[in-house]
Amino acid sequence: MRVGILAIGTELLMGQTVNTNASYLSRELSEMGISVFYHYTVGDNPGRIQLHLNALLEQCDTVFTTGGLGPTLDDITKEVVANTLGLNVILDQHSLERIKERFGLFNKIMPESNIRQAYFPEGAVILDNDCGTAPACIITVKDTDKNIVVLPGPPKEMKHIFEKYIRSFLLEKNQQAMYSKYLSIYDLGESSVEDALMDLVINQTNPTIATYAGDGKVLLRITSSGLVKEMNEIAVEDMVAIVKSRIGSHVISENGDDIDKVILRKLIEKSLKIAFVESCTGGLLSYSLIKNPGSSDVIDSALVTYSNESKMREVGVRSETLQTYGAVSHQTCHEMVAGLAAKTGVDFAVSVTGVAGPTGGTREKPVGLVYIGIYDGGEILTFENHFTGDRETIQRRTVLKALKLLYDRLGSETN
Amino acid sequence: MRVGILAIGTELLMGQTVNTNASYLSRELSEMGISVFYHYTVGDNPGRIQLHLNALLEQCDTVFTTGGLGPTLDDITKEVVANTLGLNVILDQHSLERIKERFGLFNKIMPESNIRQAYFPEGAVILDNDCGTAPACIITVKDTDKNIVVLPGPPKEMKHIFEKYIRSFLLEKNQQAMYSKYLSIYDLGESSVEDALMDLVINQTNPTIATYAGDGKVLLRITSSGLVKEMNEIAVEDMVAIVKSRIGSHVISENGDDIDKVILRKLIEKSLKIAFVESCTGGLLSYSLIKNPGSSDVIDSALVTYSNESKMREVGVRSETLQTYGAVSHQTCHEMVAGLAAKTGVDFAVSVTGVAGPTGGTREKPVGLVYIGIYDGGEILTFENHFTGDRETIQRRTVLKALKLLYDRLGSETN
Repeated sequence: MRVGILAIGTELLMGQTVNTNASYLSRELSEMGISVFYHYTVGDNPGRIQLHLNALLEQCDTVFTTGGLGPTLDDITKEVVANTLGLNVILDQHSLERIKERFGLFNKIMPESNIRQAYFPEGAVILDNDCGTAPACIITVKDTDKNIVVLPGPPKEMKHIFEKYIRSFLLEKNQQAMYSKYLSIYDLGESSVEDALMDLVINQTNPTIATYAGDGKVLLRITSSGLVKEMNEIAVEDMVAIVKSRIGSHVISENGDDIDKVILRKLIEKSLKIAFVESCTGGLLSYSLIKNPGSSDVIDSALVTYSNESKMREVGVRSETLQTYGAVSHQTCHEMVAGLAAKTGVDFAVSVTGVAGPTGGTREKPVGLVYIGIYDGGEILTFENHFTGDRETIQRRTVLKALKLLYDRLGSETN
Repeated sequence: MRVGILAIGTELLMGQTVNTNASYLSRELSEMGISVFYHYTVGDNPGRIQLHLNALLEQCDTVFTTGGLGPTLDDITKEVVANTLGLNVILDQHSLERIKERFGLFNKIMPESNIRQAYFPEGAVILDNDCGTAPACIITVKDTDKNIVVLPGPPKEMKHIFEKYIRSFLLEKNQQAMYSKYLSIYDLGESSVEDALMDLVINQTNPTIATYAGDGKVLLRITSSGLVKEMNEIAVEDMVAIVKSRIGSHVISENGDDIDKVILRKLIEKSLKIAFVESCTGGLLSYSLIKNPGSSDVIDSALVTYSNESKMREVGVRSETLQTYGAVSHQTCHEMVAGLAAKTGVDFAVSVTGVAGPTGGTREKPVGLVYIGIYDGGEILTFENHFTGDRETIQRRTVLKALKLLYDRLGSETN
């Protein structure tokens, strides 16, 4: 099966949006053994959309479009698809009701303009969108088995519809089965992961191995495809075992979960209470847990003690400690986490103090120097770290390291 | 000037790499008043590269290629460009020396295969690459004033060559001037912005108006292009005045800045100290300021009082208040910000307490109910809000609303 992807939207050609949809779809399709031959991007212009739709239909079996399904006048994808194939657009009552309901959920009345989102080329298979107001659709080109898959532009909505409908549609069309596992790897860079697994990656045929790096996590995707479902599962599990025998201490999840979710689950399971006191990460550490549902069961409180005064006032860091060793030191980090634990009576506590930059670094305490303290039922450990990058990068890396240290402490108790 | 961008590389079609080069070039070119009409991506296949190169040359004045300049056999961009234009490729001795030198810097001897990087279509203007071994080039199509700009694929190298050579080449070629302003609009959705400016958007010719929505902010770009620099500025400023006469209270910056940066600047200017006490936003509010350099000058501290106990312990919320009105109430919100202000002695303080969901909502206090309190030099105001969306969306919207309320208080003092 040959696929072409047509992204529609002037914002892409203005460089305001990066076309992550094309790479997401390409990755998913590649994993399924489907070849993507072209990515095209055009603006919200009917002539140019039609020209490129025709070019892709000529060369490919399935054409994906992304974008141009919104309620505004420049959203014209479905109309142009219909024109290109000589079809009418007709109102889908079910979609109209769903769009109205969605506005109703938020106590709003659907604006007139959103009616456009309920019109589709005649004969289209309509796919409900649970994440937005723009339903998607699949159109089969008359007298062929070619398809046009029309997807919304916002990546979250596009992915939702791909996951829910498109993957199974393509598998069925292709008569294939598929099994994947996603290992979440932390505290090990992408190139180190690749080095450790080099021979496996080079010799891969089935299962295939792919790494995706982002935000401090390396996601390792192991996929087997073939006619027999059980054979795929066995092949993937065997490969998981080999990977874990090499870099197991860095694998924190086998279903792609982020480390914050895994930690939260462990804390909830064990009914442990936790608190944070942060300086240079400014709340990012506590938010990394609190963004998740269920965090209220385990998080007592979090303090951002940014100034020296607040370090003394909130967690009882001693003035002499700050004067002798400075705010960024093992000693201050230790007193922060000790004071927090004493004050809150939690089971676990984490402290962070460092120089996130870009200014404020000195020769002894350069930008990127960060201390992380862990209180674990009486025992206190502090860790010195040297991170590189700009301010936000150092803040993110600090949070990831603190989470990994926390994970290791939590893990060592259960495993 | 019409531009087309052709990205070359099978890794893009496999989804292993996101095509950030296309968005970078598009953004830079848009800024210069140059219109990008197409992004194409093809694999390392001579036939398909040539086909798309010809298609772009037919429709555009300048074609950019990115990728395919490496030393391996699948790097064929320059050969295909030469073939397409009927040119020979010839060795450039200067480039060969530079490549050898670059290997020498790292105490390595240049592998034989890298010689390929020193071959160029005859007549090409060769552009040294200081960040890698692949030089770029500009080729003028014979008997036309069309150009092909051949750039390396790694974003760092591509940007370096664009900055150093390509921008000035294009400005000279185009003899155009351009002026843009970016209005940052908050607390007003994209469709409301478009409704308010509908007639302007529909009738736009010069200046042009474009909206870009993301993360609670609508960015309105107003651009005028024409020969005379001053005329462009006047046209844009006139349009800015019209927009501000309609939605001025939502325009928080005229240079595209985010609201957190604007607030931080105001606080620093006025030497004001601020503190935060958050519940359901879990540190995200304080981090929205602390992620910026310079925040240490104005932020005293931030408390995440997630549990009832911590609300009492940290900011002195009274037990009766929590019992009578609940943690999510005007009263608790008021006591939180009052207690924080008393404890820290800051000039401004902000409190947040709400139900971020997905669970924990009741009929009286549904998911999305959030109170925001502002302490402003003695005066305390609390605001009831009803947000929609999933947990993280409610948290983000709460932070944006709190920032807008804070901005309004700060603004009302200066303006």
